[in-house]
Amino acid sequence: MAQKTRERILQKALLLFNEVGFIEVGVREIARELEISPGNLSYHFSKKEDILFALLKQFSEQNSKLYNEYFLAPPNNAQFLTLISRIFDCQYKFRGVYIGNQFVQAEIKNEDRFDYASIAAKRAASFKKIFEDLHLAGQISVTAEDISFLVAHITLFGRFWISEATLFNKSPDKAQVIKHYVSLLSKQLSLFATEKGTNSIDDFWSKSS
Amino acid sequence: MAQKTRERILQKALLLFNEVGFIEVGVREIARELEISPGNLSYHFSKKEDILFALLKQFSEQNSKLYNEYFLAPPNNAQFLTLISRIFDCQYKFRGVYIGNQFVQAEIKNEDRFDYASIAAKRAASFKKIFEDLHLAGQISVTAEDISFLVAHITLFGRFWISEATLFNKSPDKAQVIKHYVSLLSKQLSLFATEKGTNSIDDFWSKSS
Repeated sequence: MAQKTRERILQKALLLFNEVGFIEVGVREIARELEISPGNLSYHFSKKEDILFALLKQFSEQNSKLYNEYFLAPPNNAQFLTLISRIFDCQYKFRGVYIGNQFVQAEIKNEDRFDYASIAAKRAASFKKIFEDLHLAGQISVTAEDISFLVAHITLFGRFWISEATLFNKSPDKAQVIKHYVSLLSKQLSLFATEKGTNSIDDFWSKSS
Repeated sequence: MAQKTRERILQKALLLFNEVGFIEVGVREIARELEISPGNLSYHFSKKEDILFALLKQFSEQNSKLYNEYFLAPPNNAQFLTLISRIFDCQYKFRGVYIGNQFVQAEIKNEDRFDYASIAAKRAASFKKIFEDLHLAGQISVTAEDISFLVAHITLFGRFWISEATLFNKSPDKAQVIKHYVSLLSKQLSLFATEKGTNSIDDFWSKSS
C-alpha cells in the first residue's frame, strides 16, 4: 500500500513536471492533486528533490534496459532506429525531469546523488560500440573519424531534440514529434549506409508507418 | 554619461549572467559589483528582465550583422564556416542570456517583447538560402530533402551546442570549444561537398589553424 502511494506520487509528480514545469510545481500541489495530506507525501519524500532523484533513477533504468535489449540482437540499421525511437519515447515520457533540461541540471548540480557525467560517458561509449558493430555488420561504412562524428552528433542531438521540441512546442502529437526527430537521425545514418544498410533503413520505415 | 552607465550595467550584468547564471544574479548584486547605487541602476533598468531584453537585443543585432556580412560575398564553404565560427563566438559571448538557455526561455515565455519564434524562423530561412546558394555555386551537391535535413540539423546544433558545452564544462578555453563544434559542422558539410567545396573547407581550416 505504501509502495502504491509512493508510485502514485511519482506518477503524478512527473505528470505535473511535464505539464507545468519542475520549478513551478511544489510538493503541496502534488499532494493536493492526489488528495493526500502533505504529511503523507513527506512520509515518502521529504522534499521535492527526492522525487526528482527517484524519477531520474526510473528514467535511467528504463533507458539502460533499452540499450541492453538492443545489444541482445544482431546489429542492423533498423534495430538501431528502433532503439533510437524507444529512447526518444522514454525521454518524452520523462521530459519534465529530463537531464538535458537545464532547470533539472541546476537542481542536481551540487548533489552527489546523480552522476550525470558518468552516465553521459557510458551512453557515448554505447554509441561508439553501436556504430562499430554496424560497421562490422556491413550496415554502414565508416572510418574512426566518422564514428567520432556520429557519436558527437547523436549525443548532442539525442540530448537536445526534446528541448527544441518543447521550446517551440512544435506539435502536441507525441508520435509525430518523435517521428520527425528519428527521421533526421535516419537521414544522418543513411549518409554512411551501405546498400544492405539502406535496405535495413527502408525496412524500419516500412514497418513503422 | 548616462549612456555610458547604461552600457557598463549591461556589460557587468552579462558577465555575471555568464559566470553565475541568470536566475542566481540579482540587480542588487549587479549594482554592488559596479559600485553604483541600486537607485542609479533602476534609473536605467527598472527590473532584471529589462536588462535581459536589452542584452537579447544586442545579441540579435550582432547576429544579424554577421548574416548580412555573409550575404555580401560570393558563397563558398569556407565563408560559410567563417560565418558559423562568428555566430558561435557571438553565442558564447552572450551565453548567459542565450535564448536556447531554458532559464532565459522561461523568463521571456510570457512576454511580447522578444519574439523568439519569428527570429528562429528568420534564421532557418537564412540557412535555407545559404545552402541553396552553396549548391548553385557548386560547393555542395544537395537535393531539396538534403537542404531540409541540413537546415534542421544546423538549427538544432547551432542552438544547443552551447548548452552542451556549458553542461559539461568541456573546456574552459573558448577557442578550443568553438573549434570543436565548428569542426563537427564542417564534417557534416563535407558529406555533401563537391571537390571544389572540399577544397574550400580545407582552405578554411588551413587559414584558421
